[in-house]
Amino acid sequence: MTNLISPHLPDGFKAAGIAAQIKKTGLPDVALIVSSVDCAAAALFTTNKVKAAPVLFDQHVLALDHTHIRAVIINSGCANACTGEQGLADCRETAQTLAGSLTSQYAGGTVHASQVLVMSTGVIGVNLPMAKVKNGVQLAVPVLSTDGLEAAARAIMTTDTVQKIAYAEIMISGKMVHVTGIAKGSGMIHPDLATMLSVVMTDARIAPELLKPALVQAAGLSFNHISVDGDTSTNDTLLVLANGASGVSIDNAESLDVFQAALTEVCINLAKQMARDGEGATKLITLSITGAPDMRTAENVGRTIAKSPLVKTAFYGEDANWGRIIAAAGYSGEEVDPERMSLWFGDVLVFKHGMPTRYSDAEATKAIQSHDVSVRLDLGTGAVSTTIWTCDLSHDYVTINGKYRT
Amino acid sequence: MTNLISPHLPDGFKAAGIAAQIKKTGLPDVALIVSSVDCAAAALFTTNKVKAAPVLFDQHVLALDHTHIRAVIINSGCANACTGEQGLADCRETAQTLAGSLTSQYAGGTVHASQVLVMSTGVIGVNLPMAKVKNGVQLAVPVLSTDGLEAAARAIMTTDTVQKIAYAEIMISGKMVHVTGIAKGSGMIHPDLATMLSVVMTDARIAPELLKPALVQAAGLSFNHISVDGDTSTNDTLLVLANGASGVSIDNAESLDVFQAALTEVCINLAKQMARDGEGATKLITLSITGAPDMRTAENVGRTIAKSPLVKTAFYGEDANWGRIIAAAGYSGEEVDPERMSLWFGDVLVFKHGMPTRYSDAEATKAIQSHDVSVRLDLGTGAVSTTIWTCDLSHDYVTINGKYRT
Repeated sequence: MTNLISPHLPDGFKAAGIAAQIKKTGLPDVALIVSSVDCAAAALFTTNKVKAAPVLFDQHVLALDHTHIRAVIINSGCANACTGEQGLADCRETAQTLAGSLTSQYAGGTVHASQVLVMSTGVIGVNLPMAKVKNGVQLAVPVLSTDGLEAAARAIMTTDTVQKIAYAEIMISGKMVHVTGIAKGSGMIHPDLATMLSVVMTDARIAPELLKPALVQAAGLSFNHISVDGDTSTNDTLLVLANGASGVSIDNAESLDVFQAALTEVCINLAKQMARDGEGATKLITLSITGAPDMRTAENVGRTIAKSPLVKTAFYGEDANWGRIIAAAGYSGEEVDPERMSLWFGDVLVFKHGMPTRYSDAEATKAIQSHDVSVRLDLGTGAVSTTIWTCDLSHDYVTINGKYRT
Repeated sequence: MTNLISPHLPDGFKAAGIAAQIKKTGLPDVALIVSSVDCAAAALFTTNKVKAAPVLFDQHVLALDHTHIRAVIINSGCANACTGEQGLADCRETAQTLAGSLTSQYAGGTVHASQVLVMSTGVIGVNLPMAKVKNGVQLAVPVLSTDGLEAAARAIMTTDTVQKIAYAEIMISGKMVHVTGIAKGSGMIHPDLATMLSVVMTDARIAPELLKPALVQAAGLSFNHISVDGDTSTNDTLLVLANGASGVSIDNAESLDVFQAALTEVCINLAKQMARDGEGATKLITLSITGAPDMRTAENVGRTIAKSPLVKTAFYGEDANWGRIIAAAGYSGEEVDPERMSLWFGDVLVFKHGMPTRYSDAEATKAIQSHDVSVRLDLGTGAVSTTIWTCDLSHDYVTINGKYRT
């Protein structure tokens, strides 16, 4: 069904990524994604009560019209959060600038500012450097390309060490449909939605009324199941754009199932890339919670473990200190009973019936000496399972975040 | 009213701290506190669903009789948590051994095992080394002394870098009453009660029915207002023992007020010592939340900020990255409005009306370049205030917790 080998943009999309000197480092910091035809759009935004200006702006744009979106501009290096009225004015000016530039330089007819979404990520409390942003638009529009996926993915990175791209293709009624996503982490990562920005594009044709629930379901199984540090940012945005350029309509149960599976797979793939590339992370930890009485219990226990600095530092130190996982489950606020829990590091059962098994410490340690660690906690009180992805907490996390602004 | 200069044990108490080789380091690891007469006792225990054996044991002992407690034995180096039936049996044997030893070697008549409480702190999932514990009892009982306060405080330390003692004296009806507490941190510190063990002793006479609510109030303003890393341990115990040796009875509103103030002061003093000595901490951060509509909002906002790894690493790096504090308030789950919030670093107002003020970055940075940092967040939605104490998150925290067991 899917092919992760050679990701590319779906039909009708172009992208670009350029350096506009918003970042002090001179690295790429403005990404553009443009569709040659109008897109249906659906988005999920941060649950933080303090919402950055671009979040408020996009919510407003999509509330007015979510069926004619043409472009997204994303800058890294400045979050445009806690910036008051000026922040919103800067979003408007960015959208107007891009709309004007696309109208004059890009085939596809007039683009209105109301068809442009904006996203930002970076330092909070600093106004967007508008001269640089506008210059970025002028640099990016001429280089928009069907090969621009990777450049765009790179331009949205902040403390990410690698760009994050996921891709799936599906056949519906004998025609190929593409689903391509990019995302950035990598600090402040925690459900529900943490600074993450992600854009998923598809050339399927799908009504917004179907697209939004599909996105909610995909996010629930992916971005809402990762945790780096428990912080939830002011800017999180997950956007999906569907331009219909494949000529395939998702309009019945069968095609919706296939599309949903591809969208979810792309989101899980991006989410795992984000967890693995968590700030300072040396390991991707795949935490399975099984035997839970219900999904809420499974998710809360999993998230509490995934957030525990003591658990995360122990994995960093490759110390098979499983007691911290049991203790974290215990303070999750859920009804758990140590007598019924079982805990595995990889295949090594370390805890059962309220006490340690006679496992070998060498084996348990070996099970976590890898870049990919699997941990399973069975609660012994039901049949519901879920998976949470997280990473370890390293010296580099402290270094990165102790001097982020400097 | 109080005197923190020369802390000593209240009348009728003796203490000891010795090394029984439970810790690999050979540092002191068994503390004893003994009263020559029966004590009224009240205690608060961890809210973790996974409770260590000594917590379950003490809850049982106090439920049977909380008016005749004579002794507490505390070991560090092994938490006796996740140890099943064997863990409880080890608690019983420890209490029996101490009761027998006190009966034969210590003036004051027969001591029963039901008059002995036990506490443990250290690694989870390892059984108590009973030969060493019993040997520790034999070493400690002969050296019990009215001067043993500091030795006991030292013997309960784990990753603590300094022993923690607080002391208050109050005059009631012309007589002196003493309130003396010891405590240990310093990882897994988070409300409600985190691995912390603390014993507060007083020579006041007070009924358990008054002592318990006094303890709850004192803990609510002290230990429940500190956070090191958000982890809540399996072993947390806060115990107060009142032996009446001063001859002063706390039995009316006036004397209860005076006693309550002293108890609260001792607990706040210990709690601040714990936050300052948080694992790897370089700073004590005093976070005032003001202008809240109610105490729940104030506490939740304060605790969310105090838990944020991004906030804590920024303080470690002395980076005046106040946006992270506003963002943490935003995801606290409480109704906060950035337009109404104001934020100060020391005396420097950095954020107001939803955006940064025209503060000088040098001044803001200077305000946090100290071992004692004050931060105030006014929510602008009410008149309720509270204070939370926390510490920064450093490289040393990661080092300490990455290799705790080794």
